[in-house]
Amino acid sequence: MGKLLIVGTVAFDAIETPFGKTDKILGGAATYIGLSASQFKVNSSIISVVGGDFPEEHLQMLRNKNIDTSGIEVIKEGKTFFWSGKYHNDLNTRDTLITDLNVLADFNPVVPKNYSDCDFLMLGNLHPAVQMAVINQIPKRPKLVVLDTMNFWMDNTMDELMEVIKKIDVITINDEEARQLSGEYSLVRAAQKIHAMGPKYVVIKKGEHGALLFNDGNVFFAPALPLEEVFDPTGAGDTFAGGFIGYLASTHDISFENMKRAIIYGSNLASFCVEKFGTERMENLSRKEVQNRLKQFKQLTQFEIELN
Amino acid sequence: MGKLLIVGTVAFDAIETPFGKTDKILGGAATYIGLSASQFKVNSSIISVVGGDFPEEHLQMLRNKNIDTSGIEVIKEGKTFFWSGKYHNDLNTRDTLITDLNVLADFNPVVPKNYSDCDFLMLGNLHPAVQMAVINQIPKRPKLVVLDTMNFWMDNTMDELMEVIKKIDVITINDEEARQLSGEYSLVRAAQKIHAMGPKYVVIKKGEHGALLFNDGNVFFAPALPLEEVFDPTGAGDTFAGGFIGYLASTHDISFENMKRAIIYGSNLASFCVEKFGTERMENLSRKEVQNRLKQFKQLTQFEIELN
Repeated sequence: MGKLLIVGTVAFDAIETPFGKTDKILGGAATYIGLSASQFKVNSSIISVVGGDFPEEHLQMLRNKNIDTSGIEVIKEGKTFFWSGKYHNDLNTRDTLITDLNVLADFNPVVPKNYSDCDFLMLGNLHPAVQMAVINQIPKRPKLVVLDTMNFWMDNTMDELMEVIKKIDVITINDEEARQLSGEYSLVRAAQKIHAMGPKYVVIKKGEHGALLFNDGNVFFAPALPLEEVFDPTGAGDTFAGGFIGYLASTHDISFENMKRAIIYGSNLASFCVEKFGTERMENLSRKEVQNRLKQFKQLTQFEIELN
Repeated sequence: MGKLLIVGTVAFDAIETPFGKTDKILGGAATYIGLSASQFKVNSSIISVVGGDFPEEHLQMLRNKNIDTSGIEVIKEGKTFFWSGKYHNDLNTRDTLITDLNVLADFNPVVPKNYSDCDFLMLGNLHPAVQMAVINQIPKRPKLVVLDTMNFWMDNTMDELMEVIKKIDVITINDEEARQLSGEYSLVRAAQKIHAMGPKYVVIKKGEHGALLFNDGNVFFAPALPLEEVFDPTGAGDTFAGGFIGYLASTHDISFENMKRAIIYGSNLASFCVEKFGTERMENLSRKEVQNRLKQFKQLTQFEIELN
């Protein structure tokens, strides 16, 4: 069973979609990554920081999913990171209403002792200096390091981000971010340029249009499952990444063939995440549901043609 | 060998992309459909109309591809339909600069006698009254009728379009058109509503994001091949449709399993179409190139996961 270390936000979100709105609910990249990865047989641990306002029941829920929470620092006198956003009618775009960094502003990640020998490291979307601080605390290079990031860090901390990108194996970003990072419109060319920055594997997330995996001239595509209704897209990208690295960690196989399966699982799990507000669907998701949806992914994509 | 009858425009196009511009070159939906279908073993015939300005060499080129041109009426004193457009930098959107209907304004389609017993009928994007006039000239219902249309006819001739839609088996439209026709944003729901209008099969083209095939609860997805460069998207949708119906006509098999293969071939052929201006790439495309690209489509989409 692989040891998976996840660094990322554990947060409160308030979300408004055309279907309704929530008060402050559980959110955060590491939360979604951890919940998604927990669908596989892995030992995982989250490094994050929350305030004294963060309910113990959320930490207990994560522990119930076999996620180690000893690396989630609780700053009693502080407040938990809070994000609020409103989605437009097509659910593809959103406005950020509030970003209160709170305790995240001074986040000083500490790798739990029994995870300093992790095999798999997932660097969730955070300030690149925080991501680098985690890398630097791990003496033996993990088998696989996956990085998620976003346009905000490209705009504001590009030099630091590039230093992190040099040290990782897989980068997961969306199509617009891939274009921004590379200066290339074509995603094929963008992936080539990003390879040259360091990562051997480039995963480009296209939301409802699926995801592409590039590696040294090879390319694989996982569609998103066509859904009758997308209720709340929050966390879908993190859920995708969590399914990707969770599957790899559980199988301990980082071949390209296995990464294909991993992005299919990522897409599979993301298709559940969007069915309810926040983490609700991911907290109540059975292995059987995931396996049934895998059948749907096969029907959606697999065909037989004889080459001649 | 299936008999395939194609009705659609045969035209002049003048195209401007970020990579260059053309003078009046060969274009038109039926041209692209016919060229694409000619990659398969079919007997095909085009019904269209051109003016006295249309070069005999273009007709000869089509005949060299084993396409019957006896249904292409030449109106000596008239001018050929002319379209001119300019693509934006992302190549996903374009402005129409000129639309000169010319001889198309009074197009009165006449089905060639030896194609009135066609097995496969492709109704290219045209005024729905013209599409209906072709349907009405065929005494025995073909094995499969495929319709392409566009938002312009939804805006201006919706009642006539709905009458045609009732009579066909497969509709191919793009995502925005599917949303307009159905009033549903979700493509799954849009397909359900369009099924209820008549067509048993709904093909939704998403350009660089691939195509979806819906049939009675089943759904299949063919991605577009990720390309380093898209040179000119003109005709890609028609090439897709031509590959789809050409493959079906050559195999004489309209099962859902075979339609999966057909949209993979459609996507395959469309990926060539965009590599050069106009019809150039499709006029010079070998069966071997198509087969090699099929291997790429398999690598792009096929995976092995054991269900448990």
